[in-house]
Amino acid sequence: MKLTPEQVEFFHREGWLFLPELFSQEEVDFLAREAVAIYDADRPEVWREKSGAPRTAFAAHLYNEAFGVLGAHPRMIDPIEQLFGEKVYMHQFKINAKAAFTGDVWQWHQDYGTWKRDDGMPEPRAMNIAIFLDEVMPINGPLMLVPQSQTAGDLKASHDLETTSYPLWTLDEETVTRLVKQGGIVAPTGKPGGMLMFHGNLVHGSSGNITPYPRKIVYLTLNAVSNYIRTPTRPDYIAHRDFTPIQTVADDALLRLARAPRQAAE
Amino acid sequence: MKLTPEQVEFFHREGWLFLPELFSQEEVDFLAREAVAIYDADRPEVWREKSGAPRTAFAAHLYNEAFGVLGAHPRMIDPIEQLFGEKVYMHQFKINAKAAFTGDVWQWHQDYGTWKRDDGMPEPRAMNIAIFLDEVMPINGPLMLVPQSQTAGDLKASHDLETTSYPLWTLDEETVTRLVKQGGIVAPTGKPGGMLMFHGNLVHGSSGNITPYPRKIVYLTLNAVSNYIRTPTRPDYIAHRDFTPIQTVADDALLRLARAPRQAAE
Repeated sequence: MKLTPEQVEFFHREGWLFLPELFSQEEVDFLAREAVAIYDADRPEVWREKSGAPRTAFAAHLYNEAFGVLGAHPRMIDPIEQLFGEKVYMHQFKINAKAAFTGDVWQWHQDYGTWKRDDGMPEPRAMNIAIFLDEVMPINGPLMLVPQSQTAGDLKASHDLETTSYPLWTLDEETVTRLVKQGGIVAPTGKPGGMLMFHGNLVHGSSGNITPYPRKIVYLTLNAVSNYIRTPTRPDYIAHRDFTPIQTVADDALLRLARAPRQAAE
Repeated sequence: MKLTPEQVEFFHREGWLFLPELFSQEEVDFLAREAVAIYDADRPEVWREKSGAPRTAFAAHLYNEAFGVLGAHPRMIDPIEQLFGEKVYMHQFKINAKAAFTGDVWQWHQDYGTWKRDDGMPEPRAMNIAIFLDEVMPINGPLMLVPQSQTAGDLKASHDLETTSYPLWTLDEETVTRLVKQGGIVAPTGKPGGMLMFHGNLVHGSSGNITPYPRKIVYLTLNAVSNYIRTPTRPDYIAHRDFTPIQTVADDALLRLARAPRQAAE
């Protein structure tokens, strides 16, 4: 799994890159089933919308075998190491639900601002990854990105504790309007199994979802090992303290696990 | 302006029909400017979101000349008379803002339920019309329609007084899921000037808008004259009592008005 020179150039200019159908339907069906079981569990790592619907589940790679394998998958890890020129570790791992009918918005924000302010991350040398577990459509709250906005650096933000159940450092309307005038908005869509990667300073957000189509994505952050966080303040299931470089699994590891006979849980 | 037999057949089967770029850019630019002036006015007909941003302006055709001309425009009226086989009158006339950044959702609903319950309209022989004043994109809260759902008749609904600032008879998730399984969802998009028409029993809704792109539409209802409302309960700026058949203006009336020298208002 190597990015082409054109893909590398596109990423550095636009701040994002989409690899459609990177994982197979069978691999993703398996992950989607596991995700539903995780949402059904009553764990502190599972955060909910004001409506009670699941919003995000943190750190599932640490307590679920399927997501553990995904978190070390070479199809995901290799391109990021190629772009950073060094090994990476898992800084954050979430499964974002954007539930049918009640999935709430994520206001416009950059992620690196939070990593810097709350976690003490020195540089924006961490990559956001979204892996589609459901089909992402224009109408079920796709991630919206403002291309080239990563060049604006770390923008002034306000801590929004009101709009949704999740506290977020959000950007003001004037800033977003100015950046969208320059770069527009893209909302990559596609079948389950697609992988979207984008720069830690890229401005992004997503609308609510009132459709009957859930839009689950794995949303994780791979940080360059040399860029490990210095002064974490958030719980370690949100901002991980294990800076060990990820050792990738075999390319067929997820598929083999999906096909393995399961031990009866009852 | 005549619909083709194919368009008539499509409408009766699917419950909706979209006519892209029915009004010219110059005509629509004129209307869009007038709409902003209407939203800026402090009138009881202008309803606002919880955020204070405009949500909808009622009855602008009665106090604004440009929208008065639009309300009698043959490009809009003729196709509806053709489908109903009789003259029509204006039952309701709104300009829906779906403001940039803060435009709120319209939950899944049918309109005829409200017309029947609140206005005493005998039959669903009234047509919903949406005329795009801004570009409607997948990402700025387009109307979403459930094709063929008009055949489900008048569905059980609950009065939602909480979700938004606008009271609405909304459908439950099971009903919407079932109808979407049958008919899917379409979200017609396009340049300003497009006109979308759909059946009074067609299930529809729209997501919020967090983009910097406003999505203003004129959203009006033309009722067959014989189907006039019998027992109105809502204010007459919401459910009109003037059942006079609309006499259409000349096809170039809106354009001539847009180009007319304006009297200084100051």
